Amino acid sequence: MEPLDQLLRKGETSKEVYLLRRLQADEKDSSDSTLGLHFDLTVPFARFVLENAGKLQFPFRRYQIQKCWRGERPQEGRYREFLQADIDIVDRDTLPSHYEAELPLIIADVLGGLPIPKIRIQVNNRKVLQGFYRGLGIDDQDEAIRIVDKIDKIGPAGVAAELASLGATEAQAKLALALAEISTPDASFVELVEKLGVTDPLLTEGLAELVNVVETARAHAPGICFAELKIARGLDYYTGTVYETQLVGFEKSGSICSGGRYDNLASSGKETFPGVGISLGVTRLVGVLFGRDALQVSRSVPTCVLVALPAEEDRPAADRIAAALRARGIATEVAPAAAKFGKQIRFAERRGIPFVWFPSPEGDTVKDIRSGDQVDAAAASWSPPSEDLYPAVRGSFG
Amino acid sequence: MEPLDQLLRKGETSKEVYLLRRLQADEKDSSDSTLGLHFDLTVPFARFVLENAGKLQFPFRRYQIQKCWRGERPQEGRYREFLQADIDIVDRDTLPSHYEAELPLIIADVLGGLPIPKIRIQVNNRKVLQGFYRGLGIDDQDEAIRIVDKIDKIGPAGVAAELASLGATEAQAKLALALAEISTPDASFVELVEKLGVTDPLLTEGLAELVNVVETARAHAPGICFAELKIARGLDYYTGTVYETQLVGFEKSGSICSGGRYDNLASSGKETFPGVGISLGVTRLVGVLFGRDALQVSRSVPTCVLVALPAEEDRPAADRIAAALRARGIATEVAPAAAKFGKQIRFAERRGIPFVWFPSPEGDTVKDIRSGDQVDAAAASWSPPSEDLYPAVRGSFG
Repeated sequence: MEPLDQLLRKGETSKEVYLLRRLQADEKDSSDSTLGLHFDLTVPFARFVLENAGKLQFPFRRYQIQKCWRGERPQEGRYREFLQADIDIVDRDTLPSHYEAELPLIIADVLGGLPIPKIRIQVNNRKVLQGFYRGLGIDDQDEAIRIVDKIDKIGPAGVAAELASLGATEAQAKLALALAEISTPDASFVELVEKLGVTDPLLTEGLAELVNVVETARAHAPGICFAELKIARGLDYYTGTVYETQLVGFEKSGSICSGGRYDNLASSGKETFPGVGISLGVTRLVGVLFGRDALQVSRSVPTCVLVALPAEEDRPAADRIAAALRARGIATEVAPAAAKFGKQIRFAERRGIPFVWFPSPEGDTVKDIRSGDQVDAAAASWSPPSEDLYPAVRGSFG
Repeated sequence: MEPLDQLLRKGETSKEVYLLRRLQADEKDSSDSTLGLHFDLTVPFARFVLENAGKLQFPFRRYQIQKCWRGERPQEGRYREFLQADIDIVDRDTLPSHYEAELPLIIADVLGGLPIPKIRIQVNNRKVLQGFYRGLGIDDQDEAIRIVDKIDKIGPAGVAAELASLGATEAQAKLALALAEISTPDASFVELVEKLGVTDPLLTEGLAELVNVVETARAHAPGICFAELKIARGLDYYTGTVYETQLVGFEKSGSICSGGRYDNLASSGKETFPGVGISLGVTRLVGVLFGRDALQVSRSVPTCVLVALPAEEDRPAADRIAAALRARGIATEVAPAAAKFGKQIRFAERRGIPFVWFPSPEGDTVKDIRSGDQVDAAAASWSPPSEDLYPAVRGSFG
């Protein structure tokens, strides 16, 4: 939760904020300042940086995995309560632009290790849009950005119509749309922009920053990061590089990982802490994949070994076997009740537990209940094959 | 968040619940059912079990680490927003009492591995209290439990006075207080209770269950778990074993780990899912220890190695060194800017980063900046001493 004035500090927000009120509060009880639930992790992070600037070492890097809330009508891809995983770097006064190039490398590494479809990180720079529209002679560049940002929803004709009602000429609208169509996997977008014949110092600065991001990413993980000049991130607080990430084959589900550079979010009157961050929408990602049955899990529990129980009075001994296995990182549970071994094996089968351990005064044995193989074993030394140690998640993407 | 009717499903609650309202909601907008924030993790867990009973395998064990909220006046040990870590086991229809004995073993293992003061797990059983008061001839046993639960706040005289106004005789109040004074590290409490001369079948059942919990814990981790017959857990939903946990030397800060058995929390009309659980108050625990400067952290960042940067154009090579170290589990960051090496070493010093890596065409070296030792190193093979790999937290408890 955050004070409401912090949540609305950047003025206008398109986010549906939830406010809090105590159930037992008097209707007129206004002793507490109004509290609300954060709609992202960036705004609370900016508040944290300002409050703790004296104690932090800059540049300050942090990750944070936490719930966020928006008062939406729930539907696939939009949730009232959802989990975000954020990384951010902030510095005092100035922030070198190499950090803007570092974030897509981290996302490529993190998502590349997961059983999910191929990703496509789409990058742009607000300065490119701002500078291009200014060079083009459009006065309200912020409004133009908001209009072009809707291109996937309303189409090029819709964008042209809205730009016209903003006062843009047909030629200006045509060039704005031509810019939005540019998409390259490398620095070649610069040449395509230059061919449009618009010049502006801010445009030049933005193009150079975008080249650095796209080329750094290409050297690290080719084929993942694209310059995509229609990306704008709508109403948000970004001032430079902006990122969106699509799952290839699931483009309609929207961006699963978005962010950008914000120069003014964490600033008091005296001090400013420019930052750059990116936020993985964990709930949306998992919702998309489970919603299409695109993930299979090898078993329903983390348990690798079930210790069978010959009789209820053997429970303390079985607990000691379980403790010895757990101490070596092998997830183990003890059978819930003494019963015929066949019944205890079926209990393991129903959960997908691969191994059943049989304690015995003559020496313990452990059985792989998939193959039926049973071997002598000691809790202090036996280990399962490494592929059975944890449940495995596999993806199948059509 | 939870539907409010779920949060209040067990009727009366002493918890201050936060309700949610959308900022942009129309005053008369009542299309959504009222939502609130959960005040613990047990009530949402019970709702989850009922909703998913058809898909779960029982007994169902889960852990959950999550924020909870209560509309309290914030002070040490009481928070509006706090982190709980819960474990629970639920079964269908019946739950064997050996699970009640298992939970303190887990808590002893988990907390025994942390740099915190010695713990004291205090156990009782609601059936002991209920049965004893009934055997004693007190009619409103629930109210008697609530009164005796306040003994640490209002003292024995206060309890006696409140029991008297409930209609208890002086002799009854004296025996209720004598019961509350019983505290043993083993099964010897049974004899002490029997000496009080009160008999009741529920009392007998409760004593047997409590013997099992205390003796199982004593065999596993002696000196940690005590039968403490004043423990009652106030207004909560417990029906059998109840737990509280104190930090030795920090008793005034209250219980950091509480729970118990609940037979009726997860039950629909047709089905019942008795459970037992315990909840670690992470925020309270950390708050108590940091509040008394009782924890020291070896460094302020997880970073183990800083890769120094001879010149800005060396950043891609430095990034590759960092990637190679990170791939082997060594937390690494690259210097924020190229500068004199002395300045880069001071940057590492300020954060407590123990090692600085110097890339060089003649072969890299790594320096332990505490000792000044500098050795040849390759990013594919060098490892720090294991005690430097992660920041260490050490406790000092007066």
